[in-house]
Amino acid sequence: MAQGIRVGVVGYGNLGRGVERALAQSDDMSLAAVFTRRDPASVSCHNTQVPVISLDQVQAWRDRIDVMILCGGSRDDLPIQGPQMAAWFTTVDSFDTHAKVPEYFASMDAVARQSGQIAMISIGWDPGLFSVNRLLGEAILPEGATYTFWGKGLSQGHSDAVRHVPGVRAGVQYTLPVPEAIQRVRAGEQPVLSTREKHTRECYVVLADGADEHAVREAIVTMPNYFADYDTTVNFISLDTLQREHIAMPHGGFAIRSGLTGDQTHQVMEFSLSLDSNPEFTSSVLVAYARAAYRLHRRGESGARTAFDVAPGLLSPKDPADLRRELL
Amino acid sequence: MAQGIRVGVVGYGNLGRGVERALAQSDDMSLAAVFTRRDPASVSCHNTQVPVISLDQVQAWRDRIDVMILCGGSRDDLPIQGPQMAAWFTTVDSFDTHAKVPEYFASMDAVARQSGQIAMISIGWDPGLFSVNRLLGEAILPEGATYTFWGKGLSQGHSDAVRHVPGVRAGVQYTLPVPEAIQRVRAGEQPVLSTREKHTRECYVVLADGADEHAVREAIVTMPNYFADYDTTVNFISLDTLQREHIAMPHGGFAIRSGLTGDQTHQVMEFSLSLDSNPEFTSSVLVAYARAAYRLHRRGESGARTAFDVAPGLLSPKDPADLRRELL
Repeated sequence: MAQGIRVGVVGYGNLGRGVERALAQSDDMSLAAVFTRRDPASVSCHNTQVPVISLDQVQAWRDRIDVMILCGGSRDDLPIQGPQMAAWFTTVDSFDTHAKVPEYFASMDAVARQSGQIAMISIGWDPGLFSVNRLLGEAILPEGATYTFWGKGLSQGHSDAVRHVPGVRAGVQYTLPVPEAIQRVRAGEQPVLSTREKHTRECYVVLADGADEHAVREAIVTMPNYFADYDTTVNFISLDTLQREHIAMPHGGFAIRSGLTGDQTHQVMEFSLSLDSNPEFTSSVLVAYARAAYRLHRRGESGARTAFDVAPGLLSPKDPADLRRELL
Repeated sequence: MAQGIRVGVVGYGNLGRGVERALAQSDDMSLAAVFTRRDPASVSCHNTQVPVISLDQVQAWRDRIDVMILCGGSRDDLPIQGPQMAAWFTTVDSFDTHAKVPEYFASMDAVARQSGQIAMISIGWDPGLFSVNRLLGEAILPEGATYTFWGKGLSQGHSDAVRHVPGVRAGVQYTLPVPEAIQRVRAGEQPVLSTREKHTRECYVVLADGADEHAVREAIVTMPNYFADYDTTVNFISLDTLQREHIAMPHGGFAIRSGLTGDQTHQVMEFSLSLDSNPEFTSSVLVAYARAAYRLHRRGESGARTAFDVAPGLLSPKDPADLRRELL
């Protein structure tokens, strides 16, 4: 097997491990090294052939890495790490703080133009594939409404919020779309839906010793921003059950455009995902866009890019003529 | 309202009329003229402000048209008309004879490179949006299987075949996906499905005077290529019923990728359409890609392109910074 596009990974959590697994499915790419802020000796890589390197030494790898996939978090890691890495490498990341995208884009764009690299930001499924489908829906059906539903899926942020409630020992939170709302949208109705009408929330909680069920439930369901605007169910379970039944990280959702053409003709476009592992899927998306980032850089382009800037053909290892013959 | 991108339409059938309606929904584009092989006096355009011109005089419009949308058929019109138009105009068409795409691409590419124009071919939903989703599925989930289901929808080719059966006065044919097959695919099963297991066919037929129901049904359900490999239902109805209940042209379908990541983790991506008018939706897709073709040409690019070559952002009238802020 050829070495192909040499990929580096910064951060070896769920996302970084997913990238490693996704690269193993792509013959034209290979994992060159994993970079970590931890003691490299403490990180055991799934593939023992791959060197684990201290992030302090990353600059020495400039000539041995074609694309660096940044697997850190959007809140604390990427705002600092992103521009640092873009000064030396073509990068791909999954920055997902929607409100701060313009600021992050500007910061990555400035650095990447300067360094002559491509900085592909906000890649994954939302932002990412769902964003592309929202754009397609609007562009093709300008008269209409766009709906995004998430779930059923484990929400990391809401699970954290549950775990911070006094009396909670452990817990997870699932976001569920309301089936009736999806049905109305699919039927072309274009309803105006409140937060409560679109999603429900389901919590599975292990109580701390001596904690009061009633008080914990009240603290959760009335929590502003996180739960107060939703119909929330709180289920109390044992730690055993939590560890047996709630360790997977499923997710998914629906991006739907309901529009009108001609004389009030209903047209509905829908993109949906049903994922048994949210981080593994996000990693697979990152790897496909790493291929595109590499190609854009090889063409001589530089600066920040999002999924909106990537022609689909750049994501595939196949030759354009083969794509036209096989998939068009 | 600004004139914006000046669009010409060649052919004023269902597709051409749909393009006119779609352009009316886009402030940055306008319909400059309709070109027809018929006597222009016999063509009455929905918007009476738009000139209807004989196709013989199209060359005189070279400086007044930015993009020409070719609304002719793939079998008889486009193979001749496409290269003729690409010699003078940036074009968009819906060429959909899958087997002949490489040949048509080569012919359009040669002419468009020579003329310095963009020739955007095979645009619509299949080929087109479904093709893009098949590509995304393969690129993101390399280990997996892709499934395309069509319907419920009116099939023009199969309706024509029904109408050619002796004893048939009029008729239509609907293609229906088999719900159980879709369910198995969505569940991540990756089944191998025969033609018969994927779709059924439903015909609504008006008999000619004195024709024999049994003979007509047998002729239809045993017809090779069209019906023999499917479970086909033939319903006999009156001409009144046909004209009352079967004049709409609904269609749609599902492009599904079922893949595995990591340790046999199931991941399913699905794109689907539910269209009350197939030609109106296809026209709306053509108009969005006409915007992209215009932009590629303005950038100085030339040659043939497909949906695989178009970055999503080029389809939207919005500024890239607005797209990132609103839709990412």
